[in-house]
Order: sequence, then C-alpha cells, then structure tokens
Amino acid sequence: MPIPISIPIQAREFLMIPGPTPVPDAVLEAIARHPIGHRSAEFSKVVEDVTANLKWLGQTESDVAVLTASGTGGMEAAISNTVSPGDKVLSLVCGVFGERWAKIAEAFGAQVERLKVAPGTAIGADSLEEKLQSGSYAAVTITHNETSTGVINDLQKLVAVCKKHNVLSIVDAVTSFGAVPLPIDEWGVDVLVTGSQKALMLPPGLGIIFFGERAWAAKANCKSHSFYFDLAKYRKSTKENSTPFTPNVSLFCGLQASLKMIKDEGAESIAARHHRLRKTLRAGLEAMGLQLFVDESCASPTITAIKPPEGITVDAIRKSLKGQYRITVADGQEELKGQIFRIGHMGYVSDRDILMTLACLEATLTQLGYHTEPGKAMQAAAQLLAAR
Amino acid sequence: MPIPISIPIQAREFLMIPGPTPVPDAVLEAIARHPIGHRSAEFSKVVEDVTANLKWLGQTESDVAVLTASGTGGMEAAISNTVSPGDKVLSLVCGVFGERWAKIAEAFGAQVERLKVAPGTAIGADSLEEKLQSGSYAAVTITHNETSTGVINDLQKLVAVCKKHNVLSIVDAVTSFGAVPLPIDEWGVDVLVTGSQKALMLPPGLGIIFFGERAWAAKANCKSHSFYFDLAKYRKSTKENSTPFTPNVSLFCGLQASLKMIKDEGAESIAARHHRLRKTLRAGLEAMGLQLFVDESCASPTITAIKPPEGITVDAIRKSLKGQYRITVADGQEELKGQIFRIGHMGYVSDRDILMTLACLEATLTQLGYHTEPGKAMQAAAQLLAAR
Repeated sequence: MPIPISIPIQAREFLMIPGPTPVPDAVLEAIARHPIGHRSAEFSKVVEDVTANLKWLGQTESDVAVLTASGTGGMEAAISNTVSPGDKVLSLVCGVFGERWAKIAEAFGAQVERLKVAPGTAIGADSLEEKLQSGSYAAVTITHNETSTGVINDLQKLVAVCKKHNVLSIVDAVTSFGAVPLPIDEWGVDVLVTGSQKALMLPPGLGIIFFGERAWAAKANCKSHSFYFDLAKYRKSTKENSTPFTPNVSLFCGLQASLKMIKDEGAESIAARHHRLRKTLRAGLEAMGLQLFVDESCASPTITAIKPPEGITVDAIRKSLKGQYRITVADGQEELKGQIFRIGHMGYVSDRDILMTLACLEATLTQLGYHTEPGKAMQAAAQLLAAR
Repeated sequence: MPIPISIPIQAREFLMIPGPTPVPDAVLEAIARHPIGHRSAEFSKVVEDVTANLKWLGQTESDVAVLTASGTGGMEAAISNTVSPGDKVLSLVCGVFGERWAKIAEAFGAQVERLKVAPGTAIGADSLEEKLQSGSYAAVTITHNETSTGVINDLQKLVAVCKKHNVLSIVDAVTSFGAVPLPIDEWGVDVLVTGSQKALMLPPGLGIIFFGERAWAAKANCKSHSFYFDLAKYRKSTKENSTPFTPNVSLFCGLQASLKMIKDEGAESIAARHHRLRKTLRAGLEAMGLQLFVDESCASPTITAIKPPEGITVDAIRKSLKGQYRITVADGQEELKGQIFRIGHMGYVSDRDILMTLACLEATLTQLGYHTEPGKAMQAAAQLLAAR
C-alpha cells in the first residue's frame, strides 16, 4: 500500500534538475561563513585562487571574469562587449537557450539570423559551414549543451568552422563547463560563458565569462553600451586580484572551495564520471521501456530528457517523485512543457544518485499504473557500473 | 606592554566598514541551507514574502525587482530602463557614488551635467532648483547617503524639487534604505536602488530596485538596450512570484529571514537606533579630540568619516585596529584615500559595537602616540546612551 501523501516526508530535498544542482557540504560551509571585506588581503587571495583555477579548468590563457549575476548576465556581457547595433549575428538554435542568445543579441540591436533544428537534435557543422560561406556575420552564438532538451553539440567542430571563416564564436557552456573536457584555447573558443549553479557545484549567483584575444579585438570596435558588464573593468581589477564592484563574497569563497574539490578529483575523472552517469541512466531508462528524447549520438552527459509513458502525465510523475521521495526533476520548457521530463546529473552527482533515481522512478511509474519488469532497470545500470 | 602582533589573534573578524556589514546568525543559517529549486512552490513563497516586505519597508506601491547583481547592477538597471542615448541627465555629485551615477549615464550615451559640491558637504535643494529652472533634463540622479564621505542628502527636499519640475528622480539609497525612514510614495521617488549587503544585513549579491509609475512611463519611450536588467521581465515574473532568470536562491532565502527580523524590530525602532549610533559615535570621537569630516547637519546615520590625528596615518590606524583587535574600518576612496578613515554602522550594529569600536580606537591611537584623556570618549558615549 502506498504511503499516504498527507504524511509529511522529512527526507532532505534532492535536486535532480538541470540547476541548481547538489552543493557539497564543504562548499555550503564556505558560503555560510560570515562575509569578509571585499577589499581585504584575504579576499584578494580568494580572487587569485579562483582566477587561476578557472583558467586551469578551461585550459586557457584567456581573461576570465567572475560576475555577480546569473548565467544570463554572463550571456549579456558576452553580447554587449562584442556586438554592435546593426551587426549581423548567426544564432544556432536547438532549444530555449539557443533562442536566448538570439533574443539577447536582438535586444542589443543586432540583425539576428537563426540556424534552427528540431528540439532534441543537434546543429550540424555542415549546415554552419554552408551558412558562413553564403553570408558574412560578425559573430556566431552557440549553445554547447542545450539545457532544455539534453542535447550536446559538437563544439569543437562548430568552433573550427567559425575560426576558418574568421567569425567570432560566442559559446554558452553553462551546463557543460566543468563536466566535459573544454580546452578553450585548443578549440579556439573566443567567448565562453558559464554559471555557478551547474557542474561547478555552487548555488546560483555567479556568471563566469572567458574572453579571448579575438574577443578583445571585437570589443575595441564595439559600440554597445554597458557599465556593470564592461569586461575591461573586470580585466583591470582581476589583474590586481580584485573586482570592480562589490562581489558576492560568499559565493566567491564557495567557488574557491568547489574548484579545490574539482582539482582534487581531477578534470579527466570528472569527465569520465559524467560520461558514466549518462550511460548508466540511459541504460536504466531504456530497460524500463521508456523513450529517450535524444539520440545517443548527441546525448548530453549532464541532462537526460525522457518522454512520459502513454497515459501518464509529466505532472503526475514530477508530483509523485517529489511528494513521496523528495526528488525534484524538471518539466520540459515552453513548447516541450508536459512533453518531456528532464533529469539533471551534473556536478556533485554520483553513481549512487543514478541508481536511487532509477529505483524511485520505477516505483513511481509502477504506482501510476505503468507496467515494467521489476528490477530490470537497476540490473542494466548496475551491470554497466560493474563493468567500468 | 602591547601584545606582540606576531601572536595570532583568533577573535572573529568584525566589519565596521560601509558594507559588507555584519550578518545575523539567523540570516547566515538561511543562506547556508542547501538551495531549493527556483521553480518550486517553496521558492515562490520566498519571492512573495520578500516582495511584500520590501514594499512594506519602502512604504510603496511601486514595483520592486530583486536582481541577482550588486548595487551597481541595480544602478545600471535604473539608467538603462529610463535614459536614452542623447538624453540630458543632471547628476548630483558629492562623492564617489554620485560620480558613479554620472559615469553609468554616460556609458549609456546620456549628456550628463554634474552639480558638484566639495566632498564632505551635501547638495542644496536651492542649487538643484536653480539648475532645473535654467535647463531641461530627462532625469536627475541623486545619492541619498554618500558612502565615500558619510554625508546624507536631504532626499525629501531634493525629490520635491524634481517633482515640481516634472523631472524623473533616480535615487541611490544603497547605504540608507532600511536604516532611515524612506517613504518612497509619500516623497515621490521615481526610481530607488539599494543593495543586500548594507542595512538589509545580508552578504553582497542582490541589487534591489523600486520602479514607480512615472518610471514606467519613461521606460515606454526608452531606447537603451538591455536584457538581463530589463525591468519589464521582472515585473511580469514578480506578479507570478517568480524571477525571469535563475536567481541567487540562497540570498533570497537570507533576505526573507532578514526582512522578518526588520519587521520584528520595527522600521521606526531601527531608524531610532541608527540615529543613536551616529550620535553616540560622533560624541565619543569628538571627546577623543578627533576631527569629524562631516558637519552634524548632514552627518550620515550609517557611516562616519574621521580625519586622522596629525602625524598618524590612516594606514597605521587601520592596520593596528585589524592586527590587534580584528576590527576592519575603511580607508577613504580615490582623492580621499589616506585623508580620512570611515566607520560603518549600519544594519546589524548595536550600542555595544559603538562602545567597543571607541574603546579599541582609543587604545590603538594611544599606542600610536596620540594623547587623549583615557576614558573620556567612553564617558561621553555612555552618557548619551544612559539618557536615551
């Protein structure tokens, strides 16, 4: 007999959404400390550590600025420092966040053209090549990992095409940076944006932007207005291990702690872990007879989208998982609302969390009337983990 | 004999700077909790509480938006939503933060004229009246409490002049809101900006903006570009108890807790406390024979600036206070660097903290060779507190 939902469940909330993601205790502790003065020697050391370790993680000599803003603030900084009103921008759109790039560029007066593919599929390097051969663009905006669908684009190939045509590449790596290898300089990414609340294992509140040499050249000719997001101010302050405006001191200290954890685990181990989480989760879901929204060839290592079984709504699945097991998974966004549900598995997520999610999802679906062979999903997942 | 500085001091850091300010444990605890999903019913309740209590504190029906950004981000939102390139803006400048308004407006293409007075003095309503009679401006930027000097301007009078001339008033109340009475609607303030790390008793990371009816009318004709700070997006989301972009969930929960504390203490008691802190501190400093930078008539209830005694540097005072007593006070900024030191007394600051600061400052100055009658400062301060 199912536990009546009216009994209050005291279990800790568990976020299996594409951000905010689980935050390690060591990071929460760093954030919980009383803030220190942002013009102190102690805080300079924090800025110094954070800057050095972000560059290490991005394998780059680019400048990096940590903005007190969400990821979208970082995206605005990317556009307002490089794109002028009237500039032609090509936006690669395979979901909500690809479209967000287009909207920000339009808000800053750019002439935006969209290269759009169906949700759940990736942008091909060939179609980008075709576009760049036929038109002349000031910049291309790219979503590395599309959070709304769980698609990962082949960033290395897309950036190579931009470079070949001497077009600035502006990349949203909010749900990929820190989870997958992303050698910024080797791939030639000009501008890259990420956020704190994803694979970097922090609460939301910081936007991070890498800004390379070609981006600085674009900035020199940029006519857009900005002050708070003027990256020249951040470059000057970062050189002095400081920030131009009062930063979120607590999250900077948290970022210092989380980057130390990332260094300790190692970037390659982290990438291997995310690859394994994706593989294990997908194997379990398929063994349960569920339909995955995205093909293996472009499936994200950080977010997996699933179609609900016939006759069961996304709403029912989410409510039941949350009510009985205190696990939060995400709905689809915009036109995909109710069409898919999304499981986030980035940052502080382990093999154990994947098995737990599969077990609770199986129990939930069974309770909602779905027929699946008990334990088959867990077996498929556990086999993969044993073989690792 | 003085304690040798080489002995490590284990005392808790004490911030007597104009922000970040001391954060209550109840607020730190709210922030330290694991972040909840920002699209959950639980978080909607947080947004609802925060919005209602901010409006209560500002005694206003204006819209309010809580931005994941520092105070300067809030200032940029104020300008980019109301001022178009080419607009004439009058900036009232009595210090670094008055000048910041002018720089932001210039960054957005406005023609800025400055009405400037010497640092340490306030802007007169008469000179504003004169300016507005002779020129036509789209907006006036005002710094309510000038953080760099510890001057409070007579906001009610200045705003009344703007209103009389039908000019938009854009107010920085970063170091005044929550510490002094600020009835936004009664005074007719059109746009008001504040930050989390001041009298609201939080760490830095949130910018708060009140945006009234006349401001919305200005926005309708505004040609500046913005996306992340587009207040129309915040208005729409706030009505649904949500935010347009992933917010700093932790600081929102902290703000919910601190606004509850503010409601419990009562806005009038808080204003009376800040008035008392100023009076007590100034009386003690004067009894010590120190020269205050700002005349009583426009002395800030949240920040007090002091000239160092002859022959003793600001640097020596700050180093000694921090090294021996773990109290941080601020230097002057820009041309006032080394000319004054500043004591912040806003937010979670009590009578006890003022006596403590006076006691430690007296000991420090004496150790640095300054001659003052022992205990005279404490006596002057304690007398005022006894008479309350």
